[in-house]
Amino acid sequence: MLEYSEPVTKLIDEFKRLPGIGQKSAQRLAFHVMRMAEADVERFSNAMMEVKRRIVFCDVCNNLTDVNPCRFCSNPGRDHSMICIVEEPFNLVSVEKTRSYKGVYHVLHGSLSPIRGISPDDLKLANLLPRLKPENNNDTEVKEIILATNPNTEGEATASYIARLLKPLSVKVTRIAMGMPVGSDLEYVDEVTMDKALSNRHEI
Amino acid sequence: MLEYSEPVTKLIDEFKRLPGIGQKSAQRLAFHVMRMAEADVERFSNAMMEVKRRIVFCDVCNNLTDVNPCRFCSNPGRDHSMICIVEEPFNLVSVEKTRSYKGVYHVLHGSLSPIRGISPDDLKLANLLPRLKPENNNDTEVKEIILATNPNTEGEATASYIARLLKPLSVKVTRIAMGMPVGSDLEYVDEVTMDKALSNRHEI
Repeated sequence: MLEYSEPVTKLIDEFKRLPGIGQKSAQRLAFHVMRMAEADVERFSNAMMEVKRRIVFCDVCNNLTDVNPCRFCSNPGRDHSMICIVEEPFNLVSVEKTRSYKGVYHVLHGSLSPIRGISPDDLKLANLLPRLKPENNNDTEVKEIILATNPNTEGEATASYIARLLKPLSVKVTRIAMGMPVGSDLEYVDEVTMDKALSNRHEI
Repeated sequence: MLEYSEPVTKLIDEFKRLPGIGQKSAQRLAFHVMRMAEADVERFSNAMMEVKRRIVFCDVCNNLTDVNPCRFCSNPGRDHSMICIVEEPFNLVSVEKTRSYKGVYHVLHGSLSPIRGISPDDLKLANLLPRLKPENNNDTEVKEIILATNPNTEGEATASYIARLLKPLSVKVTRIAMGMPVGSDLEYVDEVTMDKALSNRHEI
């Protein structure tokens, strides 16, 4: 870009590295930072470094955590016989918000995508199978693995891959249901979702 | 939010303070930061502090700059008899990109908005009138002031306000043209723009 001085260009470049931030947003954010009070910028800057220093991957489930193993894995109140597999740490929060799931998690940090060149080796899968041995799992046998990857092409591919991987083992593998979102309207639903909603119908 | 540890919550809150970033984006960005290499986070964090330490408002035109007065105001190659008034520092870049404007700038850092409670006192206008005295302007008389605020309600209100302010002075005040964007299609243009395009028609 023309006419920006070097510290400004640098900061715009840093913002552009963040996911979902293009040139225009990066510019806008950088100029916002320049107008923030210095103390506020310092607090932001420290919050980033702090997170980097204190947050690690949980050795058991790969969740991002400040204690290792994480609060789910080390909690005897959670049901260690159920593992819910999610793509991202913030997907775990969506499951938690239901307050109905009491099991533990496994975070993949991604989903399979031949287009973006993401293969099974790029997912955090290596520590999943060892968890199925009771001696590695608070002496609890894993009874069910819930595949809660996203209901899109990549999430589906990831779910099938993991299902095939677990097939030889005697563990029950389930997939979250797809259908009409609660509160939505038939008029606006896409045909793939409608099809899922029809084929997954149940008696009342 | 449930289940996030304290440093994570703090960083999400910091991201949420940025313009155009809501809870979901803030979460996504915070988790991205946690997965960045520590060196990259440090570089980002330093870029923010660096911008804050080195970038100031130009005393003459209010542009954000690392030298004061800024590169426009101190450049004898620019035409100091023309001042282009813009709302934001990044609006100035849009004008520069045309490579056809050789004058100097005045950055307001905002636009009038009774709804958002932004009055003339909140704009950086105080140092505009003194610039019209040749002794404050490289011994150059200002011949024209171009109002290049945005072509929306707030930008229009700001332009009229400044035009009224300058009326008693003998300086020529102009407003950037509104009409059909180049490369656009009559089929998709809104009626207000079409109306401007019609009323601003010129002989060829």
